[in-house]
Amino acid sequence: MPEIRKDIVSGSWVIIATERAKRPETFTPQKPEKQNDKLDKCPFCCGHEHMTPPEVLAIRKNTSIPDEPGWDVRVIPNKYPALSICEGKECEKQGIFEFMAASGVHEVIIETPDHEISPGKLPVEHVKKIVDSYYHRYVELEKDAGIKYIQIFRNHGQEAGASIEHPHSQIIALPVLPPSLKQEMEEARNYYFREKKCVYCKMIEEELGRGDRVIMENKDFAAFIPYAARFPFETWILPKRHQSSFSEITMDERQNLAEILHDILSRMWDYLKDPPYNYYLHTSPTDYNHIPDYHWHFEIVPKLTTVAGFELGAGMFINISNPEASAEYMRKGH
Amino acid sequence: MPEIRKDIVSGSWVIIATERAKRPETFTPQKPEKQNDKLDKCPFCCGHEHMTPPEVLAIRKNTSIPDEPGWDVRVIPNKYPALSICEGKECEKQGIFEFMAASGVHEVIIETPDHEISPGKLPVEHVKKIVDSYYHRYVELEKDAGIKYIQIFRNHGQEAGASIEHPHSQIIALPVLPPSLKQEMEEARNYYFREKKCVYCKMIEEELGRGDRVIMENKDFAAFIPYAARFPFETWILPKRHQSSFSEITMDERQNLAEILHDILSRMWDYLKDPPYNYYLHTSPTDYNHIPDYHWHFEIVPKLTTVAGFELGAGMFINISNPEASAEYMRKGH
Repeated sequence: MPEIRKDIVSGSWVIIATERAKRPETFTPQKPEKQNDKLDKCPFCCGHEHMTPPEVLAIRKNTSIPDEPGWDVRVIPNKYPALSICEGKECEKQGIFEFMAASGVHEVIIETPDHEISPGKLPVEHVKKIVDSYYHRYVELEKDAGIKYIQIFRNHGQEAGASIEHPHSQIIALPVLPPSLKQEMEEARNYYFREKKCVYCKMIEEELGRGDRVIMENKDFAAFIPYAARFPFETWILPKRHQSSFSEITMDERQNLAEILHDILSRMWDYLKDPPYNYYLHTSPTDYNHIPDYHWHFEIVPKLTTVAGFELGAGMFINISNPEASAEYMRKGH
Repeated sequence: MPEIRKDIVSGSWVIIATERAKRPETFTPQKPEKQNDKLDKCPFCCGHEHMTPPEVLAIRKNTSIPDEPGWDVRVIPNKYPALSICEGKECEKQGIFEFMAASGVHEVIIETPDHEISPGKLPVEHVKKIVDSYYHRYVELEKDAGIKYIQIFRNHGQEAGASIEHPHSQIIALPVLPPSLKQEMEEARNYYFREKKCVYCKMIEEELGRGDRVIMENKDFAAFIPYAARFPFETWILPKRHQSSFSEITMDERQNLAEILHDILSRMWDYLKDPPYNYYLHTSPTDYNHIPDYHWHFEIVPKLTTVAGFELGAGMFINISNPEASAEYMRKGH
């Protein structure tokens, strides 16, 4: 049975993905396999719909048929899920340790039928469809009472953990609140109690006022390199209007999110020469909509340096770039 | 001025290493440079002592002269430090944000004059000298009232962040308590208050009692794969005797630490085919010796998988190996 184990010291949960587990002897220092990068074997390419589980959502031409060509964005269950819906969400014991069934949902958002393109190079209208699919799956998954948190994320490039080259994002819906969110929410609440203001709203006000770390803004969103950026060119995109949950985004705001996300990814492609990167959504847990002290946002992290022993050990980062100089470079391209 | 910036949400500190900062345009998706792997240019090789700052400690033949050949282990200040001793340890403000001078110490432990060898393949007596140098630098740096935490760590292989191939460890002495330790200490204290026992002592008792995650033990140390291992083959080495700070280790225990560390690294070399890895010490902060609720240990993390968007976003790990099967493999080699 796939399980989530609790670290007895930190209280953090670790998914032991036994369904995907490799035998010990298969771990060798070689790079992760790059699967299915031959177009005729790629399960995400148009015409290969039969190679995946049936779609749970697709943005497709009105006349086209589910699980057939004619789609722009297609959402499917992950064939090798880290979690799957199952009974038994109570903690069980193994000696002094605790675990629970790894109950949840793991989906793949195939972003385009085109194997070769990157979201930064897709038309904005297409990126809007990707953002819409994030939204529609989010509000659907949120209805499941067993789901506590929905993690939307994207890995670009093999060095950033993408095992399939065809452009895709992923959604993992979890039965527990993950550590990053627990910590952010606690600290944001402390700030709110102390200062009577959302820390993210305050940050947006400060950054747009100063401007030196801002890359761009539009009517609804601001994109900047945070003051204490952990990684070179780490970029955050925040809605200007206070919203704790991603489910609160309006249709107009989705359009402007698509525009700013597209622009940032396009600048990264051009100015940083198509770097590997990860991005992910941080949003309030499913049972915390419309709270005053949290504020959803995307964090985009190009993978330009290696996380090593110091960072792993200390949980503290050494950034070898200057946030203000990096933001200026991302504004101008030189 | 090099500075440590505080993340306004999480309260975590990030070192902005301006001394090492690269210009934005030099960030490209290529792999980190592998410097000095030509033997005649390696600053850590025997005979090249003039290429480094003067040594702060060396274990060397009695008749040999400092900063000349004749050493077995040599400790030097890092030529490109992430932190350096400086005045002004108070927090300053930039708008709503806080920072302080990046005051601290960054040293390199050159583990052997031999460029080509790995600690898993060095004689145990030599590994003892490396452990001794960790200890001697630890107790020396601990005396500085400005130092709050001493992070000893090792990066092995380019994929694990080693920019110089010649075998070496590093020490970063920090003016703040890093997030990983803050969290571990808080949670270990909660456990102690609740259960009246050190959580690490309890874990050792449980693991040695069960045995299925134990790789090996000797008189003073136990090495096992933790129940909620985040990474495949993640291995912890803990002293059996309760000790909160690494400075409490005895000379006999240093011998047994060298033996078990050597054996684990040797098994990784043989059974996992010389994987890239990181290891690091977790110990109580410098002003918390002899406390009942923390327990120093080493964590060894082979780099066999890629940390990607889910892990970065959620702070939660998906381990695609089974801890019990992995421990069995590390015990037997098949």
